[in-house]
Amino acid sequence: MKLYGFWRSLATYRVRVTLALKGLRLDEPEISVDILQGRQFDDAYRKLNPQSVVPALIVDAGPPLFQSMAILEYLEETAPRPALLPADARGRARVRGLCQICVSDGHPLIVPRIRKYLEKDLGVDEAARNRWVAHWSLKALEAVEQHLAHERETGRYCHGDAPTLADVCLASQVIAAREYGHCDVSGVPRVMRVYEECMQLEAFGRSHPSRQQGAPADLRG
Amino acid sequence: MKLYGFWRSLATYRVRVTLALKGLRLDEPEISVDILQGRQFDDAYRKLNPQSVVPALIVDAGPPLFQSMAILEYLEETAPRPALLPADARGRARVRGLCQICVSDGHPLIVPRIRKYLEKDLGVDEAARNRWVAHWSLKALEAVEQHLAHERETGRYCHGDAPTLADVCLASQVIAAREYGHCDVSGVPRVMRVYEECMQLEAFGRSHPSRQQGAPADLRG
Repeated sequence: MKLYGFWRSLATYRVRVTLALKGLRLDEPEISVDILQGRQFDDAYRKLNPQSVVPALIVDAGPPLFQSMAILEYLEETAPRPALLPADARGRARVRGLCQICVSDGHPLIVPRIRKYLEKDLGVDEAARNRWVAHWSLKALEAVEQHLAHERETGRYCHGDAPTLADVCLASQVIAAREYGHCDVSGVPRVMRVYEECMQLEAFGRSHPSRQQGAPADLRG
Repeated sequence: MKLYGFWRSLATYRVRVTLALKGLRLDEPEISVDILQGRQFDDAYRKLNPQSVVPALIVDAGPPLFQSMAILEYLEETAPRPALLPADARGRARVRGLCQICVSDGHPLIVPRIRKYLEKDLGVDEAARNRWVAHWSLKALEAVEQHLAHERETGRYCHGDAPTLADVCLASQVIAAREYGHCDVSGVPRVMRVYEECMQLEAFGRSHPSRQQGAPADLRG
């Protein structure tokens, strides 16, 4: 397998964590596509992922897999141990629902193309852009918090006492909110408790943006 | 099963179409939550879906299912015929990837809460807001178009010659772009060909926003 990603990309982070949780190794180090410099629009990358977003995962001679959630589901199906979805359909629906709150309703609002449109096309200044990032990052976590607070399936992790894809997505969204959005996360204590549990696991910690090749030295320190 | 939705909601549309494709019937007519009037924030609805978004699907005595993609996957698992995901993991990854382009990177950018934030918090005028809706709605379809153009799995529908969840999501995104965003869709001919195929099927047509209880008379005509 070959993974095209970027140190800072949270969609790449989700794939990185899932590979690590399942003990899957890439055939070569993750290939960096600098989405802050616009390299995702290079012709060579567009041929791999016509949406010009990361990640893209090459698994065979066919076109790369695309979209992080689709890749996570693929890894779950093709490397089922340890399971990252519950055994029951209802449990899977809850885990996938928690994933989608982060992956659909949180993360896509703060990616580079959106920040750029706010700046260039709508003339939004930096302060308002930062508020936008913080607002939507936290909104997603607040929704997850309510589910964690009121549903009995919540355990040490989002769903029971072993990590699931919901934790992978929650972790990415906490990084979005706290580290990229500089949000006050004191209003989502259950989310943060789960995040701290996740970060005890090597798969989550070593996949963190700050620990990737390409991350600025002051973050890596 | 009980479905909380809204005539105009494209996430509700996706659930409606999937129920219809699988021949599943609700126990009572869809329950309307007027998201244009902010009824999703009413206490009664928040208890059903703490994120205050539609849809929510009640399937048993437990909390409702939430997030359209999670609901679609649940319906696929619990009512597997006709199958709306391919039999092979790679095919499923492609279909889910196409779904996510629409559900994660297209639709969440144009929902009422975002339009409201643009207006109220960023002071964006109506013309610029309309351009935002059109831009992001079409961007998602352009990405789908590239996949349809260059991947050999494309058939009469997105993936082969029978409808899949990718078609359900594509159809919702075409409605976003063409009907809500008033986009020129001439640049995505393969998407539109698939959409027209979908609309030949009763499940897609009768689920259309304009044909729902609550839609304005001029749309329903």
